[in-house]
Amino acid sequence: MATDLLKGKKGIIFGALNEQSIAWKVAEKAHEQGAEFVLTNAPIALRMGEINKLADATNSEVIPADATNMEDLENLFTKAQEILGGKVDFILHSIGMSPNVRKKKHYTENNYDFYHKTMDISAMSLHRTLSTAMKMDALNEWGSVVGLTYIAAQRVFPDYNDMADAKSLLESIARSFGYHYGEKKKVRINTISQSPTPTTAGTGVKGFDEFISFADSMSPLGNASADECADYTITLFSDFTRKVTMQNLYHDGGFSNTGVSNKVMEKFTK
Amino acid sequence: MATDLLKGKKGIIFGALNEQSIAWKVAEKAHEQGAEFVLTNAPIALRMGEINKLADATNSEVIPADATNMEDLENLFTKAQEILGGKVDFILHSIGMSPNVRKKKHYTENNYDFYHKTMDISAMSLHRTLSTAMKMDALNEWGSVVGLTYIAAQRVFPDYNDMADAKSLLESIARSFGYHYGEKKKVRINTISQSPTPTTAGTGVKGFDEFISFADSMSPLGNASADECADYTITLFSDFTRKVTMQNLYHDGGFSNTGVSNKVMEKFTK
Amino acid sequence: MATDLLKGKKGIIFGALNEQSIAWKVAEKAHEQGAEFVLTNAPIALRMGEINKLADATNSEVIPADATNMEDLENLFTKAQEILGGKVDFILHSIGMSPNVRKKKHYTENNYDFYHKTMDISAMSLHRTLSTAMKMDALNEWGSVVGLTYIAAQRVFPDYNDMADAKSLLESIARSFGYHYGEKKKVRINTISQSPTPTTAGTGVKGFDEFISFADSMSPLGNASADECADYTITLFSDFTRKVTMQNLYHDGGFSNTGVSNKVMEKFTK
Amino acid sequence: MATDLLKGKKGIIFGALNEQSIAWKVAEKAHEQGAEFVLTNAPIALRMGEINKLADATNSEVIPADATNMEDLENLFTKAQEILGGKVDFILHSIGMSPNVRKKKHYTENNYDFYHKTMDISAMSLHRTLSTAMKMDALNEWGSVVGLTYIAAQRVFPDYNDMADAKSLLESIARSFGYHYGEKKKVRINTISQSPTPTTAGTGVKGFDEFISFADSMSPLGNASADECADYTITLFSDFTRKVTMQNLYHDGGFSNTGVSNKVMEKFTK
Repeated sequence: MATDLLKGKKGIIFGALNEQSIAWKVAEKAHEQGAEFVLTNAPIALRMGEINKLADATNSEVIPADATNMEDLENLFTKAQEILGGKVDFILHSIGMSPNVRKKKHYTENNYDFYHKTMDISAMSLHRTLSTAMKMDALNEWGSVVGLTYIAAQRVFPDYNDMADAKSLLESIARSFGYHYGEKKKVRINTISQSPTPTTAGTGVKGFDEFISFADSMSPLGNASADECADYTITLFSDFTRKVTMQNLYHDGGFSNTGVSNKVMEKFTK
Repeated sequence: MATDLLKGKKGIIFGALNEQSIAWKVAEKAHEQGAEFVLTNAPIALRMGEINKLADATNSEVIPADATNMEDLENLFTKAQEILGGKVDFILHSIGMSPNVRKKKHYTENNYDFYHKTMDISAMSLHRTLSTAMKMDALNEWGSVVGLTYIAAQRVFPDYNDMADAKSLLESIARSFGYHYGEKKKVRINTISQSPTPTTAGTGVKGFDEFISFADSMSPLGNASADECADYTITLFSDFTRKVTMQNLYHDGGFSNTGVSNKVMEKFTK
Repeated sequence: MATDLLKGKKGIIFGALNEQSIAWKVAEKAHEQGAEFVLTNAPIALRMGEINKLADATNSEVIPADATNMEDLENLFTKAQEILGGKVDFILHSIGMSPNVRKKKHYTENNYDFYHKTMDISAMSLHRTLSTAMKMDALNEWGSVVGLTYIAAQRVFPDYNDMADAKSLLESIARSFGYHYGEKKKVRINTISQSPTPTTAGTGVKGFDEFISFADSMSPLGNASADECADYTITLFSDFTRKVTMQNLYHDGGFSNTGVSNKVMEKFTK
Repeated sequence: MATDLLKGKKGIIFGALNEQSIAWKVAEKAHEQGAEFVLTNAPIALRMGEINKLADATNSEVIPADATNMEDLENLFTKAQEILGGKVDFILHSIGMSPNVRKKKHYTENNYDFYHKTMDISAMSLHRTLSTAMKMDALNEWGSVVGLTYIAAQRVFPDYNDMADAKSLLESIARSFGYHYGEKKKVRINTISQSPTPTTAGTGVKGFDEFISFADSMSPLGNASADECADYTITLFSDFTRKVTMQNLYHDGGFSNTGVSNKVMEKFTK
């Protein structure tokens, strides 16, 4: 839709790895809606990914940054403002990684060095990003920050492991920083709690396909796709949602408020 | 913003009474975004209000309907489809009235005939509307229904009286019907939990000005206005939010997730 | 356990129909813990049930009362105080009935006279009871009121029909009245959100056995039984929980915070 | 009350520092109710506190343990089982400390080494404790674990700083581990979300007295005391609450579900 929802807005998009990434779709849609932005990801992710294709398609530059490194973040905001010619209006935080998941540690036997890393990469990175932005006064008033999360922050999904705890922490940081940045600069901060999505990140999780199918069966509208998530994200970056802040917003086809669906009950009926 | 977010969409807007009404603002913005719609309200409200001004400004017709009367609702959907030339894409439910509040009954001494009326007008009217729509198959696939609610459904605000219970009921109906209509026709149904808003409805409540001030002090971004609520509603009617359903969405400047603000604490500090 | 948790306490127990009723178990346990109480139920339920057996076993009297009738409730509190020789310390509200469920109406096609009845019997009856108690000043300070509810108040279970909306309303009434009665007389009011329980009431619902099995599979500790629910209720009547009020307390073996269990996932894995 | 609620039960109580500590009160009440337990705290806290007085009064032993150190925790469970003569039935986790709070860092300028420490001490310590217990199979079936938390995990209290994030993490760990330990051994794990309490830990926070007063004004029953919190904890350790798990339970005089109280509104009315 050519609706110019983000016309004139400048942003930073974390976490576009490849075409399946939600961040990739957000970049495409933000471009379509008239935004300018820089792309960023960890140096190692940049090597693996195909981000230059996206940069070309959206006429944007790539700035490598490890979101757990304060110098990298400072450099990111400096460069982004140079490139974009001013302060930033929106940020997408789509970052998550658990060494405990990667190493197939059971939740009850997590390694604590790994656990700290999961928290740092997947949750504290949002705090670090916002703290840097605030210190540098790099966001415009009424700027909008969106983090991607999952309902495992509220309810247990056994294989989601310490990412569940990381998402709880992420959502808490969004609320806490949302209060302070809101009071100070009218910046709003929200998280989108998205359906399980077959991205590269998601596919690391055991039994993921079956789980996608369960979630789909449990959602009256079916699972939300990465594409649809990007659409929703655009509304939160737009000026139509200025008073929405500190919220965790379910974008999940109704999963979160469905106790059981007819489709799931069929599995329990002979 | 001329963003054509609702281009080609057809709707029904309940509850526009005068310029302060959220429904009034929604009608203006929906018109601006390219939608066509009919306006409706109870016959008595139509006599008191200035709705014809709105109808003229938005090039829309007014169909009187008591939302607790099934024949009226059937007539509404019949006429609306005739006028709009097809099925309906969006509905705004902005209806609420409590005889107990009007008669200044204390919550603990409510009259139960009044209480039934509060429930019927303020909550069951949504069920009646959706039941009629479903029976007549009057909504398009991916249609979007929004009801307006208030956080008194979750937490006690002593003077909100039985409207708190009505809003809980309304939100439950939105979830329940959201499941069934979602499964059947991909229709999505959500409620917006709006900041206290100085509309004609709101001003019936005791100590309302002080309360507006409290809520504003408690919200990092300040209270959301009727105008901003209309903007937010537009995003929910648009195709950018297709997988959001059965949700209660706070549009309140952060009030709902603020335990206490610095501004409120000042009142407790000498 | 002979722990004298309710020694010297006087109560009113609504809703004991037969040995499967949670209210029946609560009466037995309350008696065991040293409480005195009266039993009450609707006249028609008294005719069908075996309540005299319970009255004998617990040395208590039965006072018929239709909980939607204000005169009956006034009579109940008058008689209860006479029999018990003083004000009341605890009340169990275990009342629920939906004519729409009984008549097998689909939720989306509910009859609205029935719907009003469902609300009145299953939710407003709590308001009526508390309003009567407050008017007559029939509760002791730090009295405790417990209503039984179900998680359908928060999430959709398709066959639960308008009882879901009734439970939302009931929980809202518990919060609202909990505020007012707490402020006035230190009375605390909570709801217990219990696992699906194979009582006479529960068994009216379609596909109930399969549903019990689903809920059990989804709960890390399995479904909570009526007996266990009675144990939990006792703690809420006791002086050990004086500052718990206006809460909805899940007693469900962990169901409410389980997104999916390994056992349920097995159904989605070939 | 001599109600023998914990007769024959064996436990471990973390975090009793001095007479104001909730853990101290829990120890006293658990003793009164017939439990045997060991007391534990970090070596440095033991030096500062008066724990030996408590040990004498409750006929219990003290085992020093840094709850972020896996060897200490292993030693704790080994010794505890020796001393108590068997497996453990209940654990109280009352541990929290934030170097960022101590060093008066503003939330938006937190130091990240400190932040990691806050998470490790205040939240991950629960994971470490439970992981150790599970590995050593040190808990009896139907054992009960309670962690103490605060509503800052759900809503922002500006001065609560990174402890808010830590409490969110703690509650997530309680849920996650509650699922796994429940499925494996019927162990239940819950958190109590307690009113602000004038303990040594609480008093580190800026403007704490005014805040206590605000919370008290906002709670229909007033703030819950440390003593009352201990009573409530006892019910959760008892056999009366066996099917309550993975819950966050508010023990706060109604604060959590009060949107505004008459007392607070008075501050906004001239």
